[in-house]
Amino acid sequence: MMEELELKGKSARAASRLLEKISTEGKNIALKQAASLLLENRILILTANKLDLKLAIDSGIKGAMLERLELTEQKIKIMAEGLVSLALLPNPIGEISWLKEQPNGLKIGQKRVPFGVIGIIYESRPNVTVDVFGLCLKTGNAVMLRGGKEAIESNKAIVSVLKKALIRSGLPADALQLIENTSRESAFGLMKLNKYLDVLIPRGGAALIQSVIENSTVPVIETGVGNCHIYVDDKADLDMALEVLINAKTQRPGVCNAAESLLIHKDVAAEFIPRAGKELSKNHVEIRGDRNVLDMLPYALQATEEDWGKEYLDLIISVKVVNSLDEAINHINQYGTRHSEAIITRDEEHANKFLEEIDAAAVYVNASTRFTDGYEFGFGAEVGISTQKLHARGPMGLKELTTIKYIIRGNGQIRS
Amino acid sequence: MMEELELKGKSARAASRLLEKISTEGKNIALKQAASLLLENRILILTANKLDLKLAIDSGIKGAMLERLELTEQKIKIMAEGLVSLALLPNPIGEISWLKEQPNGLKIGQKRVPFGVIGIIYESRPNVTVDVFGLCLKTGNAVMLRGGKEAIESNKAIVSVLKKALIRSGLPADALQLIENTSRESAFGLMKLNKYLDVLIPRGGAALIQSVIENSTVPVIETGVGNCHIYVDDKADLDMALEVLINAKTQRPGVCNAAESLLIHKDVAAEFIPRAGKELSKNHVEIRGDRNVLDMLPYALQATEEDWGKEYLDLIISVKVVNSLDEAINHINQYGTRHSEAIITRDEEHANKFLEEIDAAAVYVNASTRFTDGYEFGFGAEVGISTQKLHARGPMGLKELTTIKYIIRGNGQIRS
Repeated sequence: MMEELELKGKSARAASRLLEKISTEGKNIALKQAASLLLENRILILTANKLDLKLAIDSGIKGAMLERLELTEQKIKIMAEGLVSLALLPNPIGEISWLKEQPNGLKIGQKRVPFGVIGIIYESRPNVTVDVFGLCLKTGNAVMLRGGKEAIESNKAIVSVLKKALIRSGLPADALQLIENTSRESAFGLMKLNKYLDVLIPRGGAALIQSVIENSTVPVIETGVGNCHIYVDDKADLDMALEVLINAKTQRPGVCNAAESLLIHKDVAAEFIPRAGKELSKNHVEIRGDRNVLDMLPYALQATEEDWGKEYLDLIISVKVVNSLDEAINHINQYGTRHSEAIITRDEEHANKFLEEIDAAAVYVNASTRFTDGYEFGFGAEVGISTQKLHARGPMGLKELTTIKYIIRGNGQIRS
Repeated sequence: MMEELELKGKSARAASRLLEKISTEGKNIALKQAASLLLENRILILTANKLDLKLAIDSGIKGAMLERLELTEQKIKIMAEGLVSLALLPNPIGEISWLKEQPNGLKIGQKRVPFGVIGIIYESRPNVTVDVFGLCLKTGNAVMLRGGKEAIESNKAIVSVLKKALIRSGLPADALQLIENTSRESAFGLMKLNKYLDVLIPRGGAALIQSVIENSTVPVIETGVGNCHIYVDDKADLDMALEVLINAKTQRPGVCNAAESLLIHKDVAAEFIPRAGKELSKNHVEIRGDRNVLDMLPYALQATEEDWGKEYLDLIISVKVVNSLDEAINHINQYGTRHSEAIITRDEEHANKFLEEIDAAAVYVNASTRFTDGYEFGFGAEVGISTQKLHARGPMGLKELTTIKYIIRGNGQIRS
């Protein structure tokens, strides 16, 4: 197993050096070529996917997990379109920003460059394979993919097609490496592959992300867990609050920027809670409230300490009445996961205080938390949503898959 | 032990929330106050340092390590001056750059904010205590310090003085936390303190840095190891090459941006190697060369494979003749530590190729690698030199101790 990692790591590193010399146009041609070949080879891909699906069903996988694994002609079409749209985006690589010339005459520039080799550990969604290939290629990075064992046949088929696209476009096929050993050991091996990997990004559920954080010696970008709050201030427009709440909770409850918790200022609780309760129930949302909420909504369940910290990713919401804006901020900073937090208020001072004191990647005034997303932020592409503070925070676009290097031109300067 | 970490972590986190509300002026006053109090209390600090020194000498510590531990009136004066000069620097915190307004009317801004709580693990230099305190305070970060056991009395004395400065300036004393338990376990505990730490920076030798990388679940900024090369191209000005080589190797051999290896194009080897050998020997530099070098310099030692990857931090240099620019680049990318690399050449194409293909934080044309330094780059302060690609690369100034958050203002926007 380590032999596979060593071999593919070495090839990826060598390919990353070649990729640096490929022009933006060359990379865009390869992206479009890959899109065409995906469509042309859809039967091959769907056939491989059927093998994965059969094994998955036989081993008892069903529901959402099976859905994530399943490919369709439509899904392949969307994947191909994604590659084409990446080809149309500007390329951040190569930009140089020059610092002020030093008194000794040294000219120092910051040049935007690829990381080099990016590792991705993910689960059962084969579309991540295409998605990540495109993002990495556009930014000049080689990539080592370690997908879930459920999707291995689909991934092998997709990667063979994508490699063909690289070759046809004159690019190094080694820039894309699929780890075919899908044991736990291969994932752990990748987490220690500092020799060849510049960064490792886990894409998947909380358990996967936690395991990568705990075990990786390669620098990690942590993505995803979102226990997001909507705080309804005493100065809120309650109609707006209700609309934002329902949107943030129900429009797509399974994603990380969906709301998981509602806080209400005590002065508007008597008016807002019955309205919110009615609307949430109509949308099949289970309510877990504190004592004050239970008094007003007899059908609500009692929230436990655990509920305040929980990312349900489901039609469930925790609800709490707070005595002040300060209490709301403290609660969010204590229980939140620093993803996306919103206040609904008409009071500018309250809004500013919330924006200032909440410690999260995205802090909203009078809007749904659902907007925390690379596309909604206008980045054109999304690598994931970082919930750490190092390197990137919030939605990550192409630029977040790059780093800088300093280039310095002198005429013999020495240090005295 | 974990109790101390838990308690101090919690206090640091609370203090970091308070720090966010302190103006730049307030922080600058505290920095200047700290500078005055350090000078006022120099006897207290020197007395504590004597205790550390006595124990260190008794346990057989000597040489450079003892020197690093020793404080003097002069060193305290330099520490105090450092704090005053930090007070004069611009503060990066609070800047907002607004993205283009979204079609739906959302206004999205990137606001520069402190990390929150920064952890530092370091060794025997008590001046790191003051240095890091100043950098963190200026950027609005609380800090948890875990210094070496050799310096614990000095650190306790310094921290008591710095805390007094915080209190006198109306700032939270809890923003500075010294871990008094200096066991290995307290370092490992800090590496797992994700609950309270946003980032962990090791400052010290290669072994310390490696241990933090291997064991930390807190995001790490790797600093420091530098196996830096000087490549003398066939189109080099050999006088310039000699001057840069001697500067990069001998001006301060114990630091990470000093040169450790010399590569010479074969076409200029016969002329350059004897000159370089003579000058290096005059400067007491031991030469470890490949076969070609040994032929020309009979007094040189034979370099082993290990030498090519070695950071000597001493008056030793490895020397190798290469057949081409490509071979030089490949050698550096294979054996270098991605710190600082230099080419000496008059050929613009060779220079550009080197700048493009070398994978390092700082790539030089016709200048000494010794310039990789926050002060020399004009940042006014230095946190360290990052050799990783995530978050920061090369010299880190104040901005590298900050992160961003997105602040979003709407008027009821929901996602459809």
